Order: sequence, then C-alpha cells, then structure tokens
Amino acid sequence: MRILVIGGDGYCGWATALHLSACGHDVTILDNLVRRKWDRDLGVSSLTPIRGIGERLRSWEATTGKKIGFIKADATNYAALVEAFQTVEPEAIVNFGQQRSAPFSMIDRDHAALTMVNNTLCNLNVLWAMREHAPAAHLVKLGTMGEYGTPNIEIEEGFITIEHKGRRDTLPFPKQPGSFYHLTKVSDSDQLFFTCRIWGLRATDLNQGVVYGLDTEETTLAPALVNRFDYDGVYGTALNRFCVEAALGHPLTVYGRGGQTRGFINIVDTVRCVRLAVETPAEAGEFRVFNQFTQTFSVLSLAHSVVRVGAAMGLSVELQHVENPRVEKELHYYSSVNNHLLALGLEPTLLDDPTIEGMIRTAARYEKRVDTGQIPATVQWAAGSPPGRPAVPAKVVRRS
Amino acid sequence: MRILVIGGDGYCGWATALHLSACGHDVTILDNLVRRKWDRDLGVSSLTPIRGIGERLRSWEATTGKKIGFIKADATNYAALVEAFQTVEPEAIVNFGQQRSAPFSMIDRDHAALTMVNNTLCNLNVLWAMREHAPAAHLVKLGTMGEYGTPNIEIEEGFITIEHKGRRDTLPFPKQPGSFYHLTKVSDSDQLFFTCRIWGLRATDLNQGVVYGLDTEETTLAPALVNRFDYDGVYGTALNRFCVEAALGHPLTVYGRGGQTRGFINIVDTVRCVRLAVETPAEAGEFRVFNQFTQTFSVLSLAHSVVRVGAAMGLSVELQHVENPRVEKELHYYSSVNNHLLALGLEPTLLDDPTIEGMIRTAARYEKRVDTGQIPATVQWAAGSPPGRPAVPAKVVRRS
Repeated sequence: MRILVIGGDGYCGWATALHLSACGHDVTILDNLVRRKWDRDLGVSSLTPIRGIGERLRSWEATTGKKIGFIKADATNYAALVEAFQTVEPEAIVNFGQQRSAPFSMIDRDHAALTMVNNTLCNLNVLWAMREHAPAAHLVKLGTMGEYGTPNIEIEEGFITIEHKGRRDTLPFPKQPGSFYHLTKVSDSDQLFFTCRIWGLRATDLNQGVVYGLDTEETTLAPALVNRFDYDGVYGTALNRFCVEAALGHPLTVYGRGGQTRGFINIVDTVRCVRLAVETPAEAGEFRVFNQFTQTFSVLSLAHSVVRVGAAMGLSVELQHVENPRVEKELHYYSSVNNHLLALGLEPTLLDDPTIEGMIRTAARYEKRVDTGQIPATVQWAAGSPPGRPAVPAKVVRRS
Repeated sequence: MRILVIGGDGYCGWATALHLSACGHDVTILDNLVRRKWDRDLGVSSLTPIRGIGERLRSWEATTGKKIGFIKADATNYAALVEAFQTVEPEAIVNFGQQRSAPFSMIDRDHAALTMVNNTLCNLNVLWAMREHAPAAHLVKLGTMGEYGTPNIEIEEGFITIEHKGRRDTLPFPKQPGSFYHLTKVSDSDQLFFTCRIWGLRATDLNQGVVYGLDTEETTLAPALVNRFDYDGVYGTALNRFCVEAALGHPLTVYGRGGQTRGFINIVDTVRCVRLAVETPAEAGEFRVFNQFTQTFSVLSLAHSVVRVGAAMGLSVELQHVENPRVEKELHYYSSVNNHLLALGLEPTLLDDPTIEGMIRTAARYEKRVDTGQIPATVQWAAGSPPGRPAVPAKVVRRS
C-alpha cells in the first residue's frame, strides 16, 4: 500500500514508518523536522543519539534493501502538502505531524498559539488534500486518550449511547482535554468526524495512551536506526523518565500524589496498532475511534515498579513526590474500553520487570548524554506562577 | 462597568455595544473591521446602508451624549490585544470577534483555514490576556446552538449528567458541529472550560440561536446608527432572508425539505441577554453555558409564516424548495433547554406577525439596494461539487 507518514521523523512516527516499510508497504515520510528545532530552542535532547533523517533512511535501505521516500515539507503549507499528495498518490495517510507535548503547549501564550495553529492547520490541510486529491484514501490519525480526561464513567471508544429523559442517541463521547495540546486533538477528532459525514472520507482516530519503551524490532537492526528517547520535563513521559532517573540515581519524580491513572502502551504495540488500522481501512464515510492502549496504571504504581526493579538490579532508587505542575485530579476513577484493536488481532505486549530493566539498562548505556537539568517539570499549568519560565524547576515537596 | 466589546462593529456586536452604553456601562469597541473587507471580497453587502465606525460613534455621542471608545485592532494580534487590555482595564469582555458564517467557512480550504485560525487565535488570545492582565474580569463569549447539532435527546445547557454502566458523571454535552465555523465554536467552548478550571477565570458561553430582526431600541435613535441586515447566501440567515425575498417578490428559498429545526432569537433579546450575562458575572473559576434562544421553529414553518403575512400585505409570495447546500438532517427531533437566561429575568420577545411585517417593510424600504444575485446559496457542503465556486447558484428543485 502507498502510505504517506506525516511526522515520520518523530518518536512514534519513525518507528511506525520502519514497521510499515518492513511489512512491505511503500512508505514516504513527510516531515519538516521542526521537532529537532524545538529541542534546540528548549535546550533539551533525546537520550539516544538520533541521526539525521538522511542517514536514517540510507541506513534503512542498506540494512533491509527497502526504500522509504522522504519529502521535507511543512504540512501546514497547503500547496506543499498537495504537491506531496500528487507525488505519492497515497492510499493511506498516517498523520503524526503535530506538536505533541502538553507542557510545551502550556509554556506561554506563544507556545499555546503555535500548538493550536500548527496542529489544527496540519489536520485541516490533510482533510482538504484528501477531499481534493485522494478521496478514497484512508486517514489514520493519532489522537490521545488524554482527550477524554478522567470522567467518573467508563470511557468508550469515541462514542457513547446516552439515555436522557426517555430518549436515546449515540453521540461523541464527552471530552475534557487537560492542556492546549489536548484541546487541539479534540478539535482534530471533531474535524475528522465532520468530514467523514459530509465528504464521505474514511478515517480512523487512534486515541493513544502514554507510550513507553525505545526499541522496536526495526529500530534495533542498525545503530543509525535508533529511536529518540525523551526524558526531559517537556517531552519525557512518566515511565521513560522514571527509568532514566533510576539509572542515574536521581529520585523518581512523581507529580503530586501520583494517583493519576492513565492508559499505557509499549511502542512495539504502537507500530502494530497503526499497521492494523492501515491494513483494515474504514469504510467510505466511516469515522472509527480506537482507544490505543494495552494497560492502565497509576503513575505511583509505575514508580513503585521501577523502584522494585531497580533494587533488584542493585540500584538505590528513591521516590520523590514533587509539586504537581499540572492542574488535574490526583485520585480518581479510571476505566476505559479498548476492544477495537484487540478485535483486529492486537496481542498486547504487557509491561513486565524485564522490560523495565531493559529500559533502565538502555538509560544507563547513554548515561553520559544525560543532562539532569532537563528533568524537572518547569512548566506550570496554574496561573499562580508566571508562565514562560521553563528554566525554573518545580518545587520539591516530600509527601511519602 | 468597563466593558471591552470585541467585534463591536458587527451585526450583534454593534447592537450590543449600543445597548450596554445606553444602560450606563463604559463601553470600548475593539474591531479590525475585517467583516467589511470580507463583504467586499465576496461581493455582498448589507441591505441597510451601514455607516463607517467613526460616523456611527459620533452619531451615538451626538444622539445620547454617551461616548463609546474605539480601538482598531486585530484580536489575533496578541500584542495589540494586550495593549487594549492595558488601556481599557476591562471588568467584562464581550467577545463577538470571530468569522461567524458557516457557508463562508465551507467555501474552500483557504476560507476554512482562515476561519479556524482567526476564531481560535482570537479566543485563545483573549483568555491569555485575561490571565495576564485581567484575571478577575468576566468573559462573555458568543457561541452558537449549532455547536450541539441535532441530537435525538434534549439539549441541555452545556453539561449533561450521564448514567453509564452503573456510574454517573456530569460532563460537557456532546457536540456535533456542522461546519468548520461551528467546529471553531466548539473548540472555543473547550478552551473556556479548560482555562476556568486551571486559571480560575470566569466565563459565560452564550450558545446563541439564529438571530433575526434589524432594529433595537438604540439602533433606531438616529439614521447613522442603523444596523447591518444580511440577506446574501453567505451571511443571510433564514428568517431575515425570507423577509427580503418576500419584499422583492422572489420565491422564498427553503433549503431541502425545510424540516431543519433550530432555536431562534430576536436581536432585541440578544442585546438583553448579553447585558444580563454581563451584569450577573460568573464566579471565579466558573464556566457557565447559557442557551440563548427564545423559540424553536422549523425553516419551513417560518417560510409559511412569511407567506401568510406577505399575503395579508397584498404581496404574492411563493415558496421554493431548493437543493440543500448543506449536509444536515432535514427531518429530526429537536428540543433544547433555555432556562438560565429566563431565570436571570429575560422576558422573551416572541415572533409575531407584526414583527414579520415590519421586517418585510424594512426590506421593501431598501429594495433598490438589493442585488438578487446575492441570494442563492452557492457554497456546497458536499464533496460532489468542486469547492470554491461562490458564483454558481445552487440548483433549484421544486419539491412542493
């Protein structure tokens, strides 16, 4: 299948592009490489030494004999995107092409505006380009479980049947996004649903949980294929960050009480989920929503797991509750359905101690590249602290 | 109260600014006058000869002795907006400053993108400016009943209590926006709810129905205060357009079967609702949603009313079903709650025959200014017809 992977130079995008290529698809990456620029702007960097896109793609071809195309373009530039559609003639579009960090979107007004305009235009342009140049193609769009927030009822996959005052309807599941970044994903989902209805487009919205892990079957085939691994306060997500902290002997930084519970997924399953969605397209006019996670954990339980595995490895790992930079519930009900991808054949990779140990060992291997100054969560959600101060670390509060 | 009215040169904005000023508030309009430019770009114009903003404001002062301030600025320009906040030090902000036509947003990719970026940035900037420069002020934001779409259950005011699998929560009412314009309003509402939660802002979202009518108590005080009256295919809404058609002897253009049912409100009530919201602010951290309409009608029943009133006036009024340019249900359940504004004291101005007759007479008075070429709905929602052809009229289909 001819597949255009927008944002294919990123964490999930790169691993997915390789997996789709390995599975025999004709993959072209479209990326403007802006994430690498944002890293420089913020003074953060991947734990792993990721290579330039040219070296990545040459290495992939040298290692596997398979070729992945590359178009350096900004998907918010409609003319450039249309040109890419005309060149590739995609049968499927996988769209990772967005600013994907909640803290980044909360730094200040400019980062909020950048996130909203970048993400909204990228999504809108893809939909119009499909309408005008690839109306039969299938869009696989990355959303996030964070769109739902933490409702006190079970989270369904995109839609919920509501009985109200003696009547009934199946409606979009109510969303409670928790950052400007999450707000963009909700708006994207609404755009997808709308354009499937009015233009007959076909789209799958993958509401992904927190991704952890580094390696996939493909990224380990050659050193230059190594994926990025973020541990900083802006891009580093819970489990990945804890493993880096454990490797360094840095206390595990748990935000607030740590009862925040979320869906999680290993990156090896991310790439499989995207492939399953691509290879089983939505019908014309169909808007599907898949909740893409395999397990739910509280942040505190993950930290305890890392403490336990670290101890077994002979490391001294402490746990530290730091002031929560976000405004969110720290103790709440959380349950979500994730049937659709299982029905398509996903066999979940469950989190076990060897996986955590492997992540800690990976972190240790790159120990010299770690800058501990990047770890603190410096972006505050609340209005009490002035915005736009990524240099000031969150106050440390010992609670346990 | 010091009130900043963003978008105060528009249809609802102008009438509201005058009403707030008449009620003794200290009003400043912020507007970039871009709607006047869009009219020129589209080749459409108000039925009524609206004056320039300078003449409008001079006339208001000469007539009433009251002064309304004016700042020519684009609210999507954050620096300019901040400067206005610092100058005005608003206690309330009324935000009408958005591209407000659904057909405009559906013309082509560029108009969709303009609408999304313009509306999203305007709303986002106001919220950040409030956080940084007016954290205690109250935001009154214009939304639309169109955010809800046409669910098969009763529409509540912003939130709904859902029982699901033995659990219960009160969540944002599910939205099904029907155009790129409506999508922006949904995203705005989500932004408001989010920033009230995390920053403690106070906001009221007015989900307004279709507005009809021309005059308010204030706009009739002097000729130069006359409000705009849109009858064209892009900005003209159902009842206003029917009255112009009746005055001209043009068939009333009913889209499709005409069973589309919506909430409606007379502009004299619009200005009162905004005043009620402003004068009874939300609490700090509170996000209120008011459904701002007074009656529900199907489009066909309105057309029949105009036919009846026109006949009594001696006019020969025909009714013509034209192909629906939109993708929407033409027969559906529709019921919505609108208790909050009634509880604040709104006494609804109900639609009666004299009101319709008055609107037809107004249209007749300006008959020479009418360009019937502006009437057809030329913007198609569906993908079958190529986008971006505002010059091609919708096909006429006689169904009744």
